[in-house]
Amino acid sequence: MAPQTGPLMTLEEVNAFLLRDFPQIAPGRDFLVEAVGPLSARMRLCASEKHLRPGGTISGPSMFALADVTLYVAILAQIGPVALAVTTNLNINFLRRPAPGDLIADCRLLKLGKRLAVGEVFLHSPGDEDPVAHATGTYSIPPGRGL
Amino acid sequence: MAPQTGPLMTLEEVNAFLLRDFPQIAPGRDFLVEAVGPLSARMRLCASEKHLRPGGTISGPSMFALADVTLYVAILAQIGPVALAVTTNLNINFLRRPAPGDLIADCRLLKLGKRLAVGEVFLHSPGDEDPVAHATGTYSIPPGRGL
Amino acid sequence: MAPQTGPLMTLEEVNAFLLRDFPQIAPGRDFLVEAVGPLSARMRLCASEKHLRPGGTISGPSMFALADVTLYVAILAQIGPVALAVTTNLNINFLRRPAPGDLIADCRLLKLGKRLAVGEVFLHSPGDEDPVAHATGTYSIPPGRGL
Amino acid sequence: MAPQTGPLMTLEEVNAFLLRDFPQIAPGRDFLVEAVGPLSARMRLCASEKHLRPGGTISGPSMFALADVTLYVAILAQIGPVALAVTTNLNINFLRRPAPGDLIADCRLLKLGKRLAVGEVFLHSPGDEDPVAHATGTYSIPPGRGL
Repeated sequence: MAPQTGPLMTLEEVNAFLLRDFPQIAPGRDFLVEAVGPLSARMRLCASEKHLRPGGTISGPSMFALADVTLYVAILAQIGPVALAVTTNLNINFLRRPAPGDLIADCRLLKLGKRLAVGEVFLHSPGDEDPVAHATGTYSIPPGRGL
Repeated sequence: MAPQTGPLMTLEEVNAFLLRDFPQIAPGRDFLVEAVGPLSARMRLCASEKHLRPGGTISGPSMFALADVTLYVAILAQIGPVALAVTTNLNINFLRRPAPGDLIADCRLLKLGKRLAVGEVFLHSPGDEDPVAHATGTYSIPPGRGL
Repeated sequence: MAPQTGPLMTLEEVNAFLLRDFPQIAPGRDFLVEAVGPLSARMRLCASEKHLRPGGTISGPSMFALADVTLYVAILAQIGPVALAVTTNLNINFLRRPAPGDLIADCRLLKLGKRLAVGEVFLHSPGDEDPVAHATGTYSIPPGRGL
Repeated sequence: MAPQTGPLMTLEEVNAFLLRDFPQIAPGRDFLVEAVGPLSARMRLCASEKHLRPGGTISGPSMFALADVTLYVAILAQIGPVALAVTTNLNINFLRRPAPGDLIADCRLLKLGKRLAVGEVFLHSPGDEDPVAHATGTYSIPPGRGL
């Protein structure tokens, strides 16, 4: 989808907003926004004990959380602070076991409408483009905030 | 799907298996198996700080985790300890904001084949049948363990 | 979900509406509405050459079409003629090969909101409760028509 | 995913296989394979009366069929004729109304394992990269045929 405009929020503004309004997803800075761009966002999940399965790989629920928040951030950066946007659907395919350590999520918005935003997220290990999981999700946008 | 047989494992056996092999999903006993039956399982997510959003309701990733583990337990109880069964796909629809407090997950297996098991999970507050979320998921079963 | 009210439209009204406004899904009456109820609908796909795979079983795309239209009919019956409601997401799991012949779809709405309706659909052969496929889907409802 | 090898089948071999073994998806050549490559395939749905909604745009079930067959063709071209590979799951998001006329489907395989293949498919109008729908799907591969 050709973006008409770049994002409204900078990387610093997004990180500050998350830190203030979503402390629960950033305790000790587990989730870091690495980049925002037109209809896109990249985040990192910093591996720590509570996200790991035996063997040191990130658990499925933590991958879900990473995909979900990256989609949220891509929307947030594009339309401005919308604390009330909510996930309505998320579909995730687990493709292969990740290497131990952090995970990167790359999100691209496929649609950013008045009421719904849809995006896809690739999860992969840093420096390895092979996806370990792929998700598509839908957020409902409060009236008056969508494009 | 008409079950040919009841579950192989009792509620006590399932809880003991999870406690021994999956300490990471049961730290402080967040997830409790409440019942297992033919092609079905019921679990409870005990609300604690780390699962909550502001307002005291269970977060999306915690609902994902609850749906995923309940599907796993329904398979486990039916075919016996299979630590290596892995989620390949999970699709979740978030339907309404839950009331503050615990959540119950009711899983029913729709297919239990040689290689794949598919089930659906309803998430709801205790004593309230209205679902707050609904998930369908697929597990891949290691060779030699499926029915 | 406890329905507040029964459906607004009768079985006859729904069939008449479909015949008038959706001739393309009812050429020769492939899709029949068998029942509508509070937040529910049942339809039948009458097996004919164009829906079949070799072996005489209904094809995947025809199962998709049946699930999709049954969800639409369940919404339609509940909120009245809304020709503009559109599918935004549909997730379908194919569980087992159907027997040759017709298929039945049983839909239950899980949510009927102001902007979105979500439902699940079981597809099975007449007289056999074992599902051959299971779908969940979301429709977007035009402003002013949702409940 | 870095492909180890290019496809086993050429474009001509794939089209000949479909014509011989899947006459029902190619009556009058509705579905054309335009290209196959490493872990990828491109197909075209030639708009004809039976695929259209009022207004001349391709219907949802026809988009589902196009996504499903393109995923099948991407697998087929990579591992050779496997008539028995079957769809186990397909999730589709409808993003915007297509322009009247043909649709193109671009499929990329995300995983091609021993037992399961997973891919994503973008549907768009010819010459317009904006997707009208996006699907992810899983095929089960018969024993002995997967990579």
